[in-house]
Amino acid sequence: MSAQNCPHIVIVGAGFGGLSGVRSLKDADVRITVIDRRNYHLFQPLLYQVATAGLSPADIAYPIRGALSRQKNTRVFLAEAVAVDVDTRKVILRDGETEYDYLILATGARPSYFGHPEWEVYAPGLKGVEDALEIRRRILLAFEKAERETDEARRRALLTFVVVGGGPTGVELAGAIGEIACKVIVGDFRAINPRDARIILVEAGSRVLPSFPEDLAAKAEASLKRLGVEVRKNSAVTAIQPGVVVICDERIAAATVVWAAGIIASPLAQSIGVPLDRTGRVLVEPDLSVPGHPEVCVIGDLAAIADHTGRPLPGLAPVAIQQGRHAALNILRRCRGLSGTPFHYLDRGILATIGRASAVANFGAIRLSGFVAWVAWIFIHIFFLIGFRNRFVVLFEWAWAYATLQRSARLITGEGGRMLLPPP
Amino acid sequence: MSAQNCPHIVIVGAGFGGLSGVRSLKDADVRITVIDRRNYHLFQPLLYQVATAGLSPADIAYPIRGALSRQKNTRVFLAEAVAVDVDTRKVILRDGETEYDYLILATGARPSYFGHPEWEVYAPGLKGVEDALEIRRRILLAFEKAERETDEARRRALLTFVVVGGGPTGVELAGAIGEIACKVIVGDFRAINPRDARIILVEAGSRVLPSFPEDLAAKAEASLKRLGVEVRKNSAVTAIQPGVVVICDERIAAATVVWAAGIIASPLAQSIGVPLDRTGRVLVEPDLSVPGHPEVCVIGDLAAIADHTGRPLPGLAPVAIQQGRHAALNILRRCRGLSGTPFHYLDRGILATIGRASAVANFGAIRLSGFVAWVAWIFIHIFFLIGFRNRFVVLFEWAWAYATLQRSARLITGEGGRMLLPPP
Repeated sequence: MSAQNCPHIVIVGAGFGGLSGVRSLKDADVRITVIDRRNYHLFQPLLYQVATAGLSPADIAYPIRGALSRQKNTRVFLAEAVAVDVDTRKVILRDGETEYDYLILATGARPSYFGHPEWEVYAPGLKGVEDALEIRRRILLAFEKAERETDEARRRALLTFVVVGGGPTGVELAGAIGEIACKVIVGDFRAINPRDARIILVEAGSRVLPSFPEDLAAKAEASLKRLGVEVRKNSAVTAIQPGVVVICDERIAAATVVWAAGIIASPLAQSIGVPLDRTGRVLVEPDLSVPGHPEVCVIGDLAAIADHTGRPLPGLAPVAIQQGRHAALNILRRCRGLSGTPFHYLDRGILATIGRASAVANFGAIRLSGFVAWVAWIFIHIFFLIGFRNRFVVLFEWAWAYATLQRSARLITGEGGRMLLPPP
Repeated sequence: MSAQNCPHIVIVGAGFGGLSGVRSLKDADVRITVIDRRNYHLFQPLLYQVATAGLSPADIAYPIRGALSRQKNTRVFLAEAVAVDVDTRKVILRDGETEYDYLILATGARPSYFGHPEWEVYAPGLKGVEDALEIRRRILLAFEKAERETDEARRRALLTFVVVGGGPTGVELAGAIGEIACKVIVGDFRAINPRDARIILVEAGSRVLPSFPEDLAAKAEASLKRLGVEVRKNSAVTAIQPGVVVICDERIAAATVVWAAGIIASPLAQSIGVPLDRTGRVLVEPDLSVPGHPEVCVIGDLAAIADHTGRPLPGLAPVAIQQGRHAALNILRRCRGLSGTPFHYLDRGILATIGRASAVANFGAIRLSGFVAWVAWIFIHIFFLIGFRNRFVVLFEWAWAYATLQRSARLITGEGGRMLLPPP
């Protein structure tokens, strides 16, 4: 452990941004406290595969302590940060508080229901392991209930799945549900044909994957249609009730609704007392610090910052990773009496996958789709996973799923959230 | 699907016994309905490894539908059977009922608290995936809380783990907790030394593993002691309160208590209206049928039956598997107007493992212990797992854990069951 008079850096949140920050300080003569309300780092981009029974939570999670056990200047606190007092330089925890000299806030975002928090119980979003398992439970349970349902209208509602939001998460979820219905479980039932399942992807904008070039978005949409997914563009969800989704004016009876339509920054941002954008993110300075508080940096999904063309940076893992490193190095500069340098994002591209053996990728000069993009998607995701064990197991699971059309985690667990059906 | 006039066999419970029964009827001209309240078959002998973060639930579970999808004479109902009406030949479900011509009951057993059901909340037992994840949560959370605890007495209570019951499950659990504390997480903490954890295995009888020969039990006990486990024999738990276990007259402050002391048969047995033994099991006829109802068979942990020496058969997977097959064949005999034949158990041996690279095995003529027994234990367990994927992943997890001393599923998930500490 370093001496007591070396600076104490507190990093709240051990996602892509926080973990990248703490690792960049590996050899620095500082004391670091990492605070997270979970004991694991979660590989969020693959969470939809947990929700669709393809992977287990442990495959995409890594214990934060395990990742940092050899970094002797760092301790880890399992604790929930509820506020930051920038004047007294304290992070307020649910069960205590901790002082800091420098602070990196990286607590990310969670699903936003656009002023309708009451929709959450009917349409869970993908924010953590528990939500993913609840979505998995609802998807699998819907087929089970349909198998035993004798009323035709209720059976149809049980076999209707609505995914709200046509961004990468919504597209990947809808594609995976389509694959389950058309391929994975197709021979498992006697009374129903899972291929009769109706999967609807609802997008308020004029196309899916708005962050991708138009030709790739069109290819993604074609892939979704091949998996039997109905894509409803220019369609807003106006109400969600038990077992019913209202799209524009049409009432659709659907037992399973998943929310992937928008996110809002973690409420921790509000406690800093600085201006936020309309999704609750901190409008940071070019060097990622908070206006008026150079000792506080905000990164990842919690930070609002534009690239050199003035376009806001997207909420992606590479942005958070680069920001975490940059914030850490800026703090080391400040420790030496220097000022922070502005952050520049190096955009290496974006990818999304649509079911088995199909994806779209935009690497700027190179645009890929289909099988080649899917292979690129696989290796980039494996590369960013933490730990050899997780890489090996996930690669094996994908190879296995590719060869057998099976998904390894078809378990209905937990008791929460009953099945919702429209009132008879 | 077979004709409507061929006999309808209902099998309740898709554990080792039920699944063995249905598979034995693969080519029979019968209609089969398999009823289970879970959508997966669970490999119960490895559940303690889920509770101790070594495996994920999906590694030891297999979807019942997937296992039976090609068996076209069989349909699967996800439903909870609450009673049997042997007079009208109906199984009453929580949400319906189903008639049968022949019935196999294989709903197993669950933890028994010897008249103290109020202990369950403080000392969960290992009955299903949810319990295993709750136990995992408590074990991992105890170390996390201890790391942040400043009061010495509370920290000691957080680092005290009590396992009640010295049978195979208790021995395997205590060994695995010892291994976590001494090996897996030993470099991960800064304020505590996980090796200071106190792990107590409480057994009311005069030795651990009463179903094993005395010399093997002594070897198991020595292995436990090497992992730092305190073995308390001839010691009864007389009370469990929040954060406190009373062993004989000694009050031990312990935040984590796990129950592995006894089981009681599923309450379904009571509804049949025939004599039960004192653990609620049906006293079946030699052919596994229920007295007075040759069309109803009871197998596995739900059945009480003695071997040829008069000793009651143990609640082990091989017993259930052989009984499932035997009950199925007896039903086919009855379909042809013949009477059932008596069941004889072919005992191939028993095994238990104690932490890494150590086990005991009794194959009758051959008794093994240490590394050789552990290798036997591994291959026998892999052999009985369902599905190539599960076999491969579990074998990989064990090889990985052996090589790296890591455990792959160190996730604290779920919100249930707060941490219990003795009142200050």
